[in-house]
Amino acid sequence: MLKLTTAGESHGKCLLTVVEGLPAGIPIDEEEINKELRRRQGGVGRGPRMAIEKDEAEVLSGTRKGITIGSPVCLKIKNYDYSIDRLPELTRPRPGHADLAGAMKYGQGDMRNVLERASARETAARVAAGALAKILLRTFGVEVLGYVKAVGGIVAETPVKEPGEVKRLRDSSSLYCLDKRAEEKMIKRIVEAEKSGDSVGGIIEIMAHGVPPGLGSYTQWDLRLDGRLARAAMAVPAIKGVEIGLGFKAAEMSGSEVHDEIYYGKSYRGNLTGGFYRKTNNAGGLEGGITNGEPIVLRAVMKPIPTLRKPLKSVELTTKEAVKAAAERSDVCAVPAASVVLEAVVTFEIAQAFMEKFGGDSIQETKRNLEGYLAQVKAL
Amino acid sequence: MLKLTTAGESHGKCLLTVVEGLPAGIPIDEEEINKELRRRQGGVGRGPRMAIEKDEAEVLSGTRKGITIGSPVCLKIKNYDYSIDRLPELTRPRPGHADLAGAMKYGQGDMRNVLERASARETAARVAAGALAKILLRTFGVEVLGYVKAVGGIVAETPVKEPGEVKRLRDSSSLYCLDKRAEEKMIKRIVEAEKSGDSVGGIIEIMAHGVPPGLGSYTQWDLRLDGRLARAAMAVPAIKGVEIGLGFKAAEMSGSEVHDEIYYGKSYRGNLTGGFYRKTNNAGGLEGGITNGEPIVLRAVMKPIPTLRKPLKSVELTTKEAVKAAAERSDVCAVPAASVVLEAVVTFEIAQAFMEKFGGDSIQETKRNLEGYLAQVKAL
Amino acid sequence: MLKLTTAGESHGKCLLTVVEGLPAGIPIDEEEINKELRRRQGGVGRGPRMAIEKDEAEVLSGTRKGITIGSPVCLKIKNYDYSIDRLPELTRPRPGHADLAGAMKYGQGDMRNVLERASARETAARVAAGALAKILLRTFGVEVLGYVKAVGGIVAETPVKEPGEVKRLRDSSSLYCLDKRAEEKMIKRIVEAEKSGDSVGGIIEIMAHGVPPGLGSYTQWDLRLDGRLARAAMAVPAIKGVEIGLGFKAAEMSGSEVHDEIYYGKSYRGNLTGGFYRKTNNAGGLEGGITNGEPIVLRAVMKPIPTLRKPLKSVELTTKEAVKAAAERSDVCAVPAASVVLEAVVTFEIAQAFMEKFGGDSIQETKRNLEGYLAQVKAL
Amino acid sequence: MLKLTTAGESHGKCLLTVVEGLPAGIPIDEEEINKELRRRQGGVGRGPRMAIEKDEAEVLSGTRKGITIGSPVCLKIKNYDYSIDRLPELTRPRPGHADLAGAMKYGQGDMRNVLERASARETAARVAAGALAKILLRTFGVEVLGYVKAVGGIVAETPVKEPGEVKRLRDSSSLYCLDKRAEEKMIKRIVEAEKSGDSVGGIIEIMAHGVPPGLGSYTQWDLRLDGRLARAAMAVPAIKGVEIGLGFKAAEMSGSEVHDEIYYGKSYRGNLTGGFYRKTNNAGGLEGGITNGEPIVLRAVMKPIPTLRKPLKSVELTTKEAVKAAAERSDVCAVPAASVVLEAVVTFEIAQAFMEKFGGDSIQETKRNLEGYLAQVKAL
Repeated sequence: MLKLTTAGESHGKCLLTVVEGLPAGIPIDEEEINKELRRRQGGVGRGPRMAIEKDEAEVLSGTRKGITIGSPVCLKIKNYDYSIDRLPELTRPRPGHADLAGAMKYGQGDMRNVLERASARETAARVAAGALAKILLRTFGVEVLGYVKAVGGIVAETPVKEPGEVKRLRDSSSLYCLDKRAEEKMIKRIVEAEKSGDSVGGIIEIMAHGVPPGLGSYTQWDLRLDGRLARAAMAVPAIKGVEIGLGFKAAEMSGSEVHDEIYYGKSYRGNLTGGFYRKTNNAGGLEGGITNGEPIVLRAVMKPIPTLRKPLKSVELTTKEAVKAAAERSDVCAVPAASVVLEAVVTFEIAQAFMEKFGGDSIQETKRNLEGYLAQVKAL
Repeated sequence: MLKLTTAGESHGKCLLTVVEGLPAGIPIDEEEINKELRRRQGGVGRGPRMAIEKDEAEVLSGTRKGITIGSPVCLKIKNYDYSIDRLPELTRPRPGHADLAGAMKYGQGDMRNVLERASARETAARVAAGALAKILLRTFGVEVLGYVKAVGGIVAETPVKEPGEVKRLRDSSSLYCLDKRAEEKMIKRIVEAEKSGDSVGGIIEIMAHGVPPGLGSYTQWDLRLDGRLARAAMAVPAIKGVEIGLGFKAAEMSGSEVHDEIYYGKSYRGNLTGGFYRKTNNAGGLEGGITNGEPIVLRAVMKPIPTLRKPLKSVELTTKEAVKAAAERSDVCAVPAASVVLEAVVTFEIAQAFMEKFGGDSIQETKRNLEGYLAQVKAL
Repeated sequence: MLKLTTAGESHGKCLLTVVEGLPAGIPIDEEEINKELRRRQGGVGRGPRMAIEKDEAEVLSGTRKGITIGSPVCLKIKNYDYSIDRLPELTRPRPGHADLAGAMKYGQGDMRNVLERASARETAARVAAGALAKILLRTFGVEVLGYVKAVGGIVAETPVKEPGEVKRLRDSSSLYCLDKRAEEKMIKRIVEAEKSGDSVGGIIEIMAHGVPPGLGSYTQWDLRLDGRLARAAMAVPAIKGVEIGLGFKAAEMSGSEVHDEIYYGKSYRGNLTGGFYRKTNNAGGLEGGITNGEPIVLRAVMKPIPTLRKPLKSVELTTKEAVKAAAERSDVCAVPAASVVLEAVVTFEIAQAFMEKFGGDSIQETKRNLEGYLAQVKAL
Repeated sequence: MLKLTTAGESHGKCLLTVVEGLPAGIPIDEEEINKELRRRQGGVGRGPRMAIEKDEAEVLSGTRKGITIGSPVCLKIKNYDYSIDRLPELTRPRPGHADLAGAMKYGQGDMRNVLERASARETAARVAAGALAKILLRTFGVEVLGYVKAVGGIVAETPVKEPGEVKRLRDSSSLYCLDKRAEEKMIKRIVEAEKSGDSVGGIIEIMAHGVPPGLGSYTQWDLRLDGRLARAAMAVPAIKGVEIGLGFKAAEMSGSEVHDEIYYGKSYRGNLTGGFYRKTNNAGGLEGGITNGEPIVLRAVMKPIPTLRKPLKSVELTTKEAVKAAAERSDVCAVPAASVVLEAVVTFEIAQAFMEKFGGDSIQETKRNLEGYLAQVKAL
């Protein structure tokens, strides 16, 4: 089974990613991973830490001559700002962070011991894992794309588009946003927030194209892919909501407007589903907790970064005096970065469900199994 | 570890729930479980199946003289409508259900073999598990309450209230809704939908009171309680979105408005957090993926039931002809029922995180461990 | 993933088996399961309980018209001796049982609450699960056979034989032993033990034929099939040792005598390994923790049943007085029964590793994946 | 939950250990880990690789100022012989290794891609994990000791002894053997094997002192600690058998000789069991799959190293010609090293079961929970 374990602290020596269960025979180009790590570091609104870190993945294990051999792949991302042992105590918990609850849980008076692992810096390790999953899924024609849908209340127009076009638009935007006009307003909103020592959040959209039908399972509650995607997305720091397809809009609509009627004929997706297709995708590619051959569409909301230059009210842990929260350096808006993280974790979950269904210990075996299945679907 | 496995088909002999990891020494009153099962069957908008089924849990294992002994508790809910082998073939997949994707995944021409397990009837088994978790958590002063927040676009007012009052209001409402005026409009909306052969969805809100700080963990992505709650909620059939605390509203706000400032003093929650408290709860009780001692607040959206009396377009599986989807009998609105299911799954996840942190094989041991921890928190 | 959960107490209503992850399309004949359950109840040396129980599996879920549909299969075995709530307190712990340690762990003064679940009666549920795994693996030509290798120090001759012959010999023996002459002596030994109120143990051997190479994995410690088989075998009550291939004999030999040299040509096993074969099988079919295409050979030792008619010294739990241990009715020799249980759990582990490698949600898909792999192996 | 993941290849950059679930507040001294790593490298009979490698663990994550903070601890062991990409192809599979089966499984013509991960060098990572578990368990008075019981048929006398004495004897022996006279003969046996280009195996014994009663559980087959220990031990490369307590000897004895009668009074172990004790320990500390407060005693057999200077018959993978197996440099006897590995994996499993029972996120919390439990046991 594809499995992800990360380790590492924000100002420790490094971050680490261990991915188990990758089949043998996949060429791993470190530059492809680094491209994703750089994307995560980019985007308008980032703080000074990003100028210090130059995230690069070093493959420590799991390949020979650059090709996977079936064993766990461990990636290391060095922290240039390695200072964990020298950093001062933190005794004024920051609202919106794990600080206070973590102090209680782990019995720590110095919340530096909490924030070092709770920090969103850890998501670099998840991005690296997602890059591996992306390299795997590409072999099978699956492509997952994340972009910024809204920032600080400004919503981008994102009419469904062909993946190549989505990628082009996104990659040419400093906010990873498909809508140039919205982007301008978003940047303005970020600049304003920065001036006032405040921060803004937003919404991220992820689309996954080319996903074969039948991933995940409704046979047990924890096998449903919708649930697994929700877990992965909500487990990204600062994410407070996840929706699939129509999402919360479905609460206001009638059943007859919501469900995606079924047609038969030739189409782009016919390759995966043997000719069955939909004209709408309100379900976001998931019915009954399994993929239906339509693109997966998921959105997540990111709250504004909780570390503010004009800090919030807090309480000194030892003295119990009312104080201002500790002010760690931080971003003003991390929504573009979060879009990269969400793309990564969604990719990983899909890859995991993919390997569950198709099995295989080498890329040739997994591919053969997939092709046999697609032919079976065609003959349904 | 607390673990939940369910089995059973919609028209099979029964549904089954296996809960592993309950400590010894908990008295299990079947009537308490049945009360929850009846709540799940109730609510305005249910279809004819609910008149046939009278869900009752029979304890098959895990207790002696009505008290848990540490072994797996298996509950059985009999299906009065046991007819799985006699029911006709289904070859016209229903949009919005697992039918078509399940046919592909499992290589089934007759989609009766898909819908029998994919059916939401399975959620009775999760409600039974939730009832066990509720009995467990009650011992420790934790109470989880779910209610209907919106139906078909009509939103209830639910100013934060004391749990006893919430329970009283909810239990006196035929829609499990805290707002009488909204309820009337919701019922109207459901009746209209019924008349036109349509269906409506809605929004459910869950609050968990008395949860100690420090459940879940930020140390690994899959241990975060926010992610685990999102998985459990999204894995409920027809749920298409989940949010915690402010949720999607956070996308439009500034950081300075969003985060819950920290105070110190005596308060209701001071018992759990040693005196630290918040005046707001925008985080919904979770910071950094762990509980912070404030009530957990989670909302989920349910799409309208996909089985409509005026059926949707589909394709006959064998002939590939355009047809109307199969019309299984169904509900018009299952949001009240879903509120019971969501309450159950959220309760279960909290109980699991609780047992992880406090360990213990008997209720006395777990309780002693909890009390030791709360004293430690107080002395922080 | 194939998963096994059991529930139920020795004198509760029933025992339950839940098997998740069976592909769709497998015909389940309850009689095949019952045959294994009866085998478990049989064998010379069993006590009076076996005359009360007539174990039969009732399929509660997971099939339609007798064929699996991909959902969890739940089997129920009724206890005819359902008396858990009426049975008296047990306060004199029996050496060799979980009684005393369980009393401490679960905080139970009445050890009836311990022994009810710790009882070997639970293994009926594992046998039922093994029967399902057997039905699955048979489709792929895998056959697992368990038999009695030694009883009370008397060792049977079991020259490696063709599976059909092994099965015939075993099934015609009242001790599930392949060696008629040893069997006679074993029975004598059992009768003697019975007379003196004592009990005897023995050794069980399991052989698995037709297992394709490459099951399990050396890439992570907990994926190795040798380890997983050892866990499954040692987790059978009263089992105190497990060995694979030469096992403990290997400690005395030289490397040059131990390892199975590799040859190439046509042979029975050539179908699985593309022509590579061994003339010896000291490794017992497992090298580096993965199957190598030779039969898996595993042995386990069962200690004598700890419940004796002439009871052992113990201490009354409440008074701390020296007493005789409680004398529950029991078997004199359960080695034949244990051979059925071990066959079951070994079959289940192989089936799990099999499904991991080949994936698939329907029997046709899994079979196609297997065949593709065997062709690949042939072309190595 | 305590979890162990390893990564790394024999001639890759490094080996990696990730241990999740260690409570906060444990001082980690790298030298303590290194001591265990050096022990693994030592012992009479090791080959030339050990002269190249100087295993040292570098803590990459999970601590601050040398103390755990609850996050995953990652240890790195550098490979001085980093040459994986330059090493030549291996196309002559070595009997007794994963080579051939691995080639089939992973579709690899060059079996270097198999052996790099299948190599026993990986066990250094498990030893490092065991060292962490040892540091944890020491806090609670648990001590696990492994030593060599037999080599090439020569069996050491190991009358049960006090842990301090066992440790002293073992640490003063070049074979990690408690019996000086046997040791001399063993060394002779190893030297002979070396001369003739052969290898020898042996038996290892592990004792765990101070383990509280009630670890593991009989409530589900995969929770039993005996099974989990067996998995961990059998999953060590070259281990072909595992036994607990009397082990295989129990097959020849009567029930009345085997079971450990129960007494009450004051004794060394009375601290853990509230006064209940045994005069014998044939069960090896485990009854019903849970610890009973007596020392855990486990033995494992290691087959002779399969890489021989006088190589075995094999087949060239491409040409199918009969050849001699590849001759990688190797050890003559690795039983002492294996005793260190087995000590490590047994320690880890006990620590895992320990954390399951007692929970806790900080060492003070876990300790308080343990103490509460021991007081409860005393009051039984």
